[in-house]
Amino acid sequence: MGILAFLAAERTLVDGALDRLLPPADAWPRRLHEAMRYAVFGGGKRVRPILARAACRAAGGDPARILEAACALELVHTYSLVHDDLPALDNDTLRRGRPTVHVAYDEALAILVGDALLTEAFLVLGTHPAGEELAPRRAEGCRLVALAVGSAGMVGGQVEDLEATGTPPDAGRLERIHRAKTGALLAASVELGAVLAGVDAATRQRFARFGQSLGLAFQIADDILDVTGTAASLGKSPGKDAAAGKLTYPAVYGLAAARQELCRLAGALRAEAEALEGRSGTLASLVEYIASRDR
Amino acid sequence: MGILAFLAAERTLVDGALDRLLPPADAWPRRLHEAMRYAVFGGGKRVRPILARAACRAAGGDPARILEAACALELVHTYSLVHDDLPALDNDTLRRGRPTVHVAYDEALAILVGDALLTEAFLVLGTHPAGEELAPRRAEGCRLVALAVGSAGMVGGQVEDLEATGTPPDAGRLERIHRAKTGALLAASVELGAVLAGVDAATRQRFARFGQSLGLAFQIADDILDVTGTAASLGKSPGKDAAAGKLTYPAVYGLAAARQELCRLAGALRAEAEALEGRSGTLASLVEYIASRDR
Repeated sequence: MGILAFLAAERTLVDGALDRLLPPADAWPRRLHEAMRYAVFGGGKRVRPILARAACRAAGGDPARILEAACALELVHTYSLVHDDLPALDNDTLRRGRPTVHVAYDEALAILVGDALLTEAFLVLGTHPAGEELAPRRAEGCRLVALAVGSAGMVGGQVEDLEATGTPPDAGRLERIHRAKTGALLAASVELGAVLAGVDAATRQRFARFGQSLGLAFQIADDILDVTGTAASLGKSPGKDAAAGKLTYPAVYGLAAARQELCRLAGALRAEAEALEGRSGTLASLVEYIASRDR
Repeated sequence: MGILAFLAAERTLVDGALDRLLPPADAWPRRLHEAMRYAVFGGGKRVRPILARAACRAAGGDPARILEAACALELVHTYSLVHDDLPALDNDTLRRGRPTVHVAYDEALAILVGDALLTEAFLVLGTHPAGEELAPRRAEGCRLVALAVGSAGMVGGQVEDLEATGTPPDAGRLERIHRAKTGALLAASVELGAVLAGVDAATRQRFARFGQSLGLAFQIADDILDVTGTAASLGKSPGKDAAAGKLTYPAVYGLAAARQELCRLAGALRAEAEALEGRSGTLASLVEYIASRDR
């Protein structure tokens, strides 16, 4: 199976699990649950759950047993998008070609949809994978995801991103923002897969470091796409980051140097994926996909 | 020790633990951590952590071992206040006599402060109480708190509260809102204390039901205070709920009937507190305090 067929199959599994995990659209309060589903089922690539399952497999675990827990990562990711899009933050009206939640519904509901999705993520992590003997892994899953997306992680990165908007290029600041804002959750996805597979502390560290580099590569690719992509391929206006005065890799280093850095990182990631899983493993395919994706 | 001295001692303990749990105000990103502390250290009564510790004691556990986990409830409560106060929701500018977070800082930061506090709560619940053998209680703590404050609990109640504002009095709707918006987290506080003490399923159910009634009594008392309190005793303008067209007990039943219902509930709660803990237990004192509080 090629990487695209693999990704499509994974997405189908993840979408099915998300559908089972989320309350039905007609459950009280109906408007909230409708809007939560509108946000979650908006054409996401499901990169984070897929990464967690790939890491679990590479670490010798059974990815089928962590399907639900992996979906928690997508819930966290979706909450962060809904809140980032709000008028007080990035003020985005389109996301993946559709009106953002505060446009399709209203601002109050969009704030509460984000709150509910974040909470649901920890409900899922506290519940799955089931079984008394797996409780230590569940508790550790809650802990590691919360650490990654809290005030010293994803939320912190969003704060500094807002503060840095319109300021002069600053390489240190750019890396700090990216590591926290996007990198931390991607790294946590890889680490969660390994932790739920039951690896020892040293192996966990290797997976965590691999996840950090992968997160950085993902973000550089994203920054490059903002410059080189088309509205059709991105599902949003290209050049938006530049127009908003955001710190990006092309803005700080130039497009050619950003591409070079992505290429260097991808090489190191390839070698590490092979060391973790062997030559034809899923992690190596995901590295290729992330380094060369065009949307 | 009288109830007021007991509450003051508990508050000091909780405040100390919150101070240790929250990142320092000068940690990156400084403005976020400053604002998180501004929100948390704003004169809260710490009712939820105190309830959790009282329930733990009543269930035969050691409240000292659940101090940190109990603080997670205060972090959740604070996040909910910060988001409820936002311009798109209740648009409150004063909270406990001080400017709300979005007034003292800005709206974007207030949204992110709420997000970070909610996340921090699950970090705390995933981490405390420490020890491999307590992991099942930690995982269950995450689960039960998330269930209480998610889309079918606190956030759902907030959605229906917004939808109900300005609509005609409706007793069923009022109870649904109060059970979810305020009652669910208070009930979860009592239940968390019992779960962390290690009770069996039947005892847990008794504590949970006690918590639900206590939550309802708390909210009725709050509604009455909005009518009868003064600005000085409330730390906010009295009559605010009525002016905003909120569904409250006095609005639906009248003040006298609301007082009668509170009195009836307090009687049942007294009996149940005594059954759970004995005549002179802390739970019974907390029932008295909540039913008769004047701020």
